Amino acid sequence: MKQKQKPSHKIHFVAFIVASIDGRISKNKESKVKNWTSLEDWKFFQDSLVKYNVVIVGYNTYKIAETNLKKRNTIVFTSRVVKPKIIGSVVFLNPKYSNILDFLKSTKRKNVAILGGPKVYNFFLEHKMLDELYVTIEPYIFSDGVPMFSGKFREVRLSLQSVKKINKKGTLLLKYKYAN
Amino acid sequence: MKQKQKPSHKIHFVAFIVASIDGRISKNKESKVKNWTSLEDWKFFQDSLVKYNVVIVGYNTYKIAETNLKKRNTIVFTSRVVKPKIIGSVVFLNPKYSNILDFLKSTKRKNVAILGGPKVYNFFLEHKMLDELYVTIEPYIFSDGVPMFSGKFREVRLSLQSVKKINKKGTLLLKYKYAN
Repeated sequence: MKQKQKPSHKIHFVAFIVASIDGRISKNKESKVKNWTSLEDWKFFQDSLVKYNVVIVGYNTYKIAETNLKKRNTIVFTSRVVKPKIIGSVVFLNPKYSNILDFLKSTKRKNVAILGGPKVYNFFLEHKMLDELYVTIEPYIFSDGVPMFSGKFREVRLSLQSVKKINKKGTLLLKYKYAN
Repeated sequence: MKQKQKPSHKIHFVAFIVASIDGRISKNKESKVKNWTSLEDWKFFQDSLVKYNVVIVGYNTYKIAETNLKKRNTIVFTSRVVKPKIIGSVVFLNPKYSNILDFLKSTKRKNVAILGGPKVYNFFLEHKMLDELYVTIEPYIFSDGVPMFSGKFREVRLSLQSVKKINKKGTLLLKYKYAN
């Protein structure tokens, strides 16, 4: 992989994650309806997205939210292409062959929202590109399902910026900064 | 299994969990030293344990903390026995063959701390015996490792009781109640 090892000072990467208490983001890869996520989190997420001029998702996440993502500047990480393939406002890109930083620079997009799934979140963590992380914890335990991050074990230190209880049932919105 | 399906009004079960942001409780089953957990959490945990007259752990957790657990009234869930086997203050019990509620009633122990691992936490969740849950979230991401709960997927609703930031680096202590 050709990704740079230092955080970029120009491009800002922020991940948004909604999870259960036990760190699961969905039942399985294809789960569409997340009836356990709260309206307050959805509102926060939609209000936040206004600030970002491009979102990055993996192929599974793209297929689940295709209708909405097609309307945005979306980069889809996928192993199905070698060179970036552009369809409307959506770019299919293989991070194994294309450097995402170079690509973003060429498009002059500086505020990037990373929307999952676990391999995509892990890609930015692994390449030390993740600047901030919003984690919403819904008050559920699932005991199984898709984890937040999927990759090799490593201890990545973050720093807690803020904690907010966003509704009565106890959904928590945590904001972290990369600290390593 | 012969476990009762309703929460007991007499015996109080509380689980204690320390995890990373992404819901991992250790690198692997045998991990001994958790150098990523904070002193403040350890203090909270030790102060809390005073209130419980018995702790329940799985066999792996027991082996890791044997020296400390031998000094307590400890029940070890294990498939290695058929009937409960008592060695000093430690009872080895197979929940498949022995009803844990009946066993606890016979010992007149009413305050039970559940200390893991994931299958043991899940046992009490699955049998609707978990009354409260303390989750400490240390500001790390691991991307792999042992999950908090391990079992079949199910949506178990909890209710957030309190949130505390217990140190500068941003360790969070969350308290949940069973809500289903």
